[in-house]
Amino acid sequence: MTITAAVSGASGYAGGEVLRLLANHPEVEIGAITAHSSAGSRLGELQPHLLPLADRVIVETTVENLAGHDVVFLALPHGASAEVAAALPEGTLVIDAGADHRLEDPEAWFQFYRSEHAGTWPYGLPELPIGPGAGPGSGHKQREKLRGARRIAVPGCYPTSALLALTPGFAAGLLEPEDVVIVSASGTSGAGKSVKPHLLGSEVMGSMSPYGVGGGHRHTPEIEQGLSNAAGEPVTVSFTPTLAPMSRGILTTATARVKDGVGAASLRAAWESAYEGEQFVHLLPSGQWPATQMVLGSNNAVIQLAFDEHAGRVIVSSAIDNLTKGTAGGAVQSMNIALGLPEVTGLAQLGVAP
Amino acid sequence: MTITAAVSGASGYAGGEVLRLLANHPEVEIGAITAHSSAGSRLGELQPHLLPLADRVIVETTVENLAGHDVVFLALPHGASAEVAAALPEGTLVIDAGADHRLEDPEAWFQFYRSEHAGTWPYGLPELPIGPGAGPGSGHKQREKLRGARRIAVPGCYPTSALLALTPGFAAGLLEPEDVVIVSASGTSGAGKSVKPHLLGSEVMGSMSPYGVGGGHRHTPEIEQGLSNAAGEPVTVSFTPTLAPMSRGILTTATARVKDGVGAASLRAAWESAYEGEQFVHLLPSGQWPATQMVLGSNNAVIQLAFDEHAGRVIVSSAIDNLTKGTAGGAVQSMNIALGLPEVTGLAQLGVAP
Amino acid sequence: MTITAAVSGASGYAGGEVLRLLANHPEVEIGAITAHSSAGSRLGELQPHLLPLADRVIVETTVENLAGHDVVFLALPHGASAEVAAALPEGTLVIDAGADHRLEDPEAWFQFYRSEHAGTWPYGLPELPIGPGAGPGSGHKQREKLRGARRIAVPGCYPTSALLALTPGFAAGLLEPEDVVIVSASGTSGAGKSVKPHLLGSEVMGSMSPYGVGGGHRHTPEIEQGLSNAAGEPVTVSFTPTLAPMSRGILTTATARVKDGVGAASLRAAWESAYEGEQFVHLLPSGQWPATQMVLGSNNAVIQLAFDEHAGRVIVSSAIDNLTKGTAGGAVQSMNIALGLPEVTGLAQLGVAP
Amino acid sequence: MTITAAVSGASGYAGGEVLRLLANHPEVEIGAITAHSSAGSRLGELQPHLLPLADRVIVETTVENLAGHDVVFLALPHGASAEVAAALPEGTLVIDAGADHRLEDPEAWFQFYRSEHAGTWPYGLPELPIGPGAGPGSGHKQREKLRGARRIAVPGCYPTSALLALTPGFAAGLLEPEDVVIVSASGTSGAGKSVKPHLLGSEVMGSMSPYGVGGGHRHTPEIEQGLSNAAGEPVTVSFTPTLAPMSRGILTTATARVKDGVGAASLRAAWESAYEGEQFVHLLPSGQWPATQMVLGSNNAVIQLAFDEHAGRVIVSSAIDNLTKGTAGGAVQSMNIALGLPEVTGLAQLGVAP
Repeated sequence: MTITAAVSGASGYAGGEVLRLLANHPEVEIGAITAHSSAGSRLGELQPHLLPLADRVIVETTVENLAGHDVVFLALPHGASAEVAAALPEGTLVIDAGADHRLEDPEAWFQFYRSEHAGTWPYGLPELPIGPGAGPGSGHKQREKLRGARRIAVPGCYPTSALLALTPGFAAGLLEPEDVVIVSASGTSGAGKSVKPHLLGSEVMGSMSPYGVGGGHRHTPEIEQGLSNAAGEPVTVSFTPTLAPMSRGILTTATARVKDGVGAASLRAAWESAYEGEQFVHLLPSGQWPATQMVLGSNNAVIQLAFDEHAGRVIVSSAIDNLTKGTAGGAVQSMNIALGLPEVTGLAQLGVAP
Repeated sequence: MTITAAVSGASGYAGGEVLRLLANHPEVEIGAITAHSSAGSRLGELQPHLLPLADRVIVETTVENLAGHDVVFLALPHGASAEVAAALPEGTLVIDAGADHRLEDPEAWFQFYRSEHAGTWPYGLPELPIGPGAGPGSGHKQREKLRGARRIAVPGCYPTSALLALTPGFAAGLLEPEDVVIVSASGTSGAGKSVKPHLLGSEVMGSMSPYGVGGGHRHTPEIEQGLSNAAGEPVTVSFTPTLAPMSRGILTTATARVKDGVGAASLRAAWESAYEGEQFVHLLPSGQWPATQMVLGSNNAVIQLAFDEHAGRVIVSSAIDNLTKGTAGGAVQSMNIALGLPEVTGLAQLGVAP
Repeated sequence: MTITAAVSGASGYAGGEVLRLLANHPEVEIGAITAHSSAGSRLGELQPHLLPLADRVIVETTVENLAGHDVVFLALPHGASAEVAAALPEGTLVIDAGADHRLEDPEAWFQFYRSEHAGTWPYGLPELPIGPGAGPGSGHKQREKLRGARRIAVPGCYPTSALLALTPGFAAGLLEPEDVVIVSASGTSGAGKSVKPHLLGSEVMGSMSPYGVGGGHRHTPEIEQGLSNAAGEPVTVSFTPTLAPMSRGILTTATARVKDGVGAASLRAAWESAYEGEQFVHLLPSGQWPATQMVLGSNNAVIQLAFDEHAGRVIVSSAIDNLTKGTAGGAVQSMNIALGLPEVTGLAQLGVAP
Repeated sequence: MTITAAVSGASGYAGGEVLRLLANHPEVEIGAITAHSSAGSRLGELQPHLLPLADRVIVETTVENLAGHDVVFLALPHGASAEVAAALPEGTLVIDAGADHRLEDPEAWFQFYRSEHAGTWPYGLPELPIGPGAGPGSGHKQREKLRGARRIAVPGCYPTSALLALTPGFAAGLLEPEDVVIVSASGTSGAGKSVKPHLLGSEVMGSMSPYGVGGGHRHTPEIEQGLSNAAGEPVTVSFTPTLAPMSRGILTTATARVKDGVGAASLRAAWESAYEGEQFVHLLPSGQWPATQMVLGSNNAVIQLAFDEHAGRVIVSSAIDNLTKGTAGGAVQSMNIALGLPEVTGLAQLGVAP
């Protein structure tokens, strides 16, 4: 089986990571590599780490260039993907790494993006429970909605880490829907390759800083959507992202109030059950805590939790690589599922450490 | 006025920072420099950045060596300071950078340190309100308890950042005492100079990880104590520290539920009022957020807050240098107050950036 | 074809990287995983990034545990490998990541290691020319000595980067054998996982420092050996290693005097010819310079050169991942050659960036 | 004595560091703070670490705004300072942190900068010997040319580190003038605050890369000028700068062939003699090597040397903070000398570590 794939946005970090993974994928042949302002350049100028692809030439991002492939990966500015997808055949698998088709609620979309909602696509987080009481069985997780899908919305990087951290507790009915607090630290590649003064190496090395504080970050409604779906009731989240002095990785600290009578054992059981058999999401043995280094360059998520009886809260820590599991890895994993390939095909299960 | 000062624990990071600040202090003459296993070494071998002190020889940490100075800084393992202090004259100013004398509640001490409580000393965080309703006036802050004091307990680095972030809201009666959540990211110097595998450069660079999760970190009761004193009622905190890939700095994200009817304006007014006139604690202009780089090497704390109406919570961000304002700077500032010197004497109000 | 492989020194960085690569190798089944002080531990405790191997238990490094495999990787302290190899069958492929069998000259060995020379094994740097005038043909490179070999000495990480940088010029007779100067910057993983104060994260982040200055570093004779063999005459090298604030990677700046009459074109031709057809060693297009990020986690080396006519010198820059091409990748590549597998089997040709 | 000082280029890293040092200078009152595109902004928006100056407003860089101060610091693009200086009174001390007035040779200027030479000003590196045989006496060093000067050219950051490393050997006649090789690693602040893709945090963290290789870097003729003046004959240098994953600091590895008959003792004696009595340039005790962390934020340079008898070369390592001793600290030190103040006034002699 040879799958042809086109990759747009190939000059950026997300597009580069999609290419890195596809170049390692045994069933994929990389077709068009597209971008906008860098069309005409050798890929080696913009993504020098992709040495086997260095002499490939980037072409303009147009429907003509993207058409004719089995799979099209979109890593475009938000607002652009609906039009492109509409112009591609229905049978083409279109995987959107952007935000356009993640949210189900048009009002939430408008509130955070100030444009018309372009419709919702199946959400590419296979390990997500799809409703309250959803267990580890394949029938109860988001992956079943991805089988055979031809349009997939890749989750945001923060939502991936936050939803993997907290949905087991909400799906099992163990957590209160209010006063959920999530603080995440992200590597700078999450902010993309656009040159802004605060992203200069001199500014970020040796420094931590928050941004989008107070509920304004666009990933907030996406996190609330996933948690609410799992809980079967509206969940309210305070989410604060911070920028950390590292290129890759997200460490999320997520905490929620535990319902009366729920203890450490039932909490652990819920998380164990949720991720039993998963090949990329790992609940660590008791006592071992996630570190982003564990998952660098891999499609893994590592998770640990603790019950703080004094505060009446569960604290869950999750680590992912924002570009792999948080973006391109999730995209390729979803592609594998959509096309009926083994889910791990072409995806690293070992991190690059130290 | 020349003050003679002895510094114990001079081979570690806290002791080294005390020395750095005292060497810049116009009224202080550095006397005995003491340590344990490195006694007999030139200071330049252990603290090569302290070039003007390089040829000073470290002597053993004994009462004999510490006695005879106006001020004695203790940076010893916990459990050791009470005995040393008891052997020093009452008129000697003893400033303990360790934990022994911070907690007021012997039970909390025993629960977290498993040893007998050694008594409580005045808490060296001058900007802290000392009770509910405490405003910016000198009569209502902790600094008044430091004037003339001869025993001072320097706060922990995390409590310094957390208390500066949240006490204005509790002192002003605007925040609920439950479901306070604090997540802090610290540079690795906070873990000290002891050589442990997880603190190797190879392990920490490019990686974020949590530790002491679930309420177990020893700074938790200290944070609760400070917030409870400000609130006039018991405050319960979920505190999670994380290790960030940087040498210095703490970024704290602290969030609490806002009482019904409290809005953004009254929140901002409380923080403005609390830090009006303070020379080291700065509420940033609206829209500007703290970064640890702003305060590197300085005794400053920078703070910003946002009201998340949707979640009903205030989110406060604070940044300090864990070794300066979080340890040695707080110690020297407290010394200045105790001895009647201008509070800023010898302390940097400018960070080293980028 | 299934190859069974044992890995000793599995708790360290080199051993961990061998395991990472072998776990991705389609023809290899990992057998015994051995170490010394950590025998009895789950691998997941020591190498948490190797998630698929987390439940494997480390056993003691003994001949009994290592025997019975097709391949044995040794990552032991120097001085230990000869005895182990002698106790293993001649038909077992033994690949030593340590220094014991790299040097050909017993006197040089004694001068730098102060012990008896244990004999020389084929040197596992396949791309190395094996004599003056050696071109790109397979008959003239070190790889031919690895075919069918059953004992292989993996080069040091610095020599790998330095020899790949300079041997093309010496093999082609373009460079003077004196006044060769090499300065390398290495990530801290090159110093291993042993806990020493100067390797603490707090010490290395934001800092660069040299070590082994003045000709004392043990990789110096190994570099001179490789350059001298290529030149057909003794080459003298001044080598200075420095420690850089990153976990992985070596950037080498190597410079030599160019013989009279040699110009930029003939220099470039020599390097082009040397690496034409190589799959892991890449001479970059003119104007593009190596960065260690290009090769992170991959088995690639990237190289660029410039002719400084004013100074009469060629300056060559090379970047490798010290743990991959510089250690474990070179070891696996050599294994592939020795066993007749395609050279790239199981080895990444794409770096993890940014 | 109160000196009024104007600072141009205040939005950049060099200008910011001049302001940081002047704000700590007991004899200086900061007057106009000027820049170009950010004129009209609060300084706190651009230099948030300069908290005591946060409310100062940046004004346009014009002669009108700069005039009327005792001292004017210029941190402008090259080519701009001559005109500004010509419009300021002769009695105003003008200190140029740019390159315009460093080179003595108009041809070298034209070759590297492609514009007309604007004339040479006294070179602001007080510790530099001013001719062969120059010893430690004040009559033989560059500082004497700075006394009473009213135009001073601040050295480049790389030349500062390279000249402090090697001039003692050339001034003492111990080194050969050919085959001098210098490799420097610089923090990213040396590249300034302009936003270029390769300076993004994501690109520089975890990565080392060279640039300006092959003799093309503009600091090359400045280094050769200083070494040649010390040697009394033309010295030829191969200089390679590299970018290191840190915000500040330069580590220079400089090596030169030692003349026949010169040994370790006479080498050490030359360096000892050169820096005896200097307050900012420190030859470290034998066995201790420089690290950039030792000097962070201070005006110090730390130096060590080794004689590699086998290679016949001396290897000298020097570490400075590129923004302090390498730019703004050198500027303020030169100001102190020009105005007759004690040389160390307002300048840190202690680094910020770890």
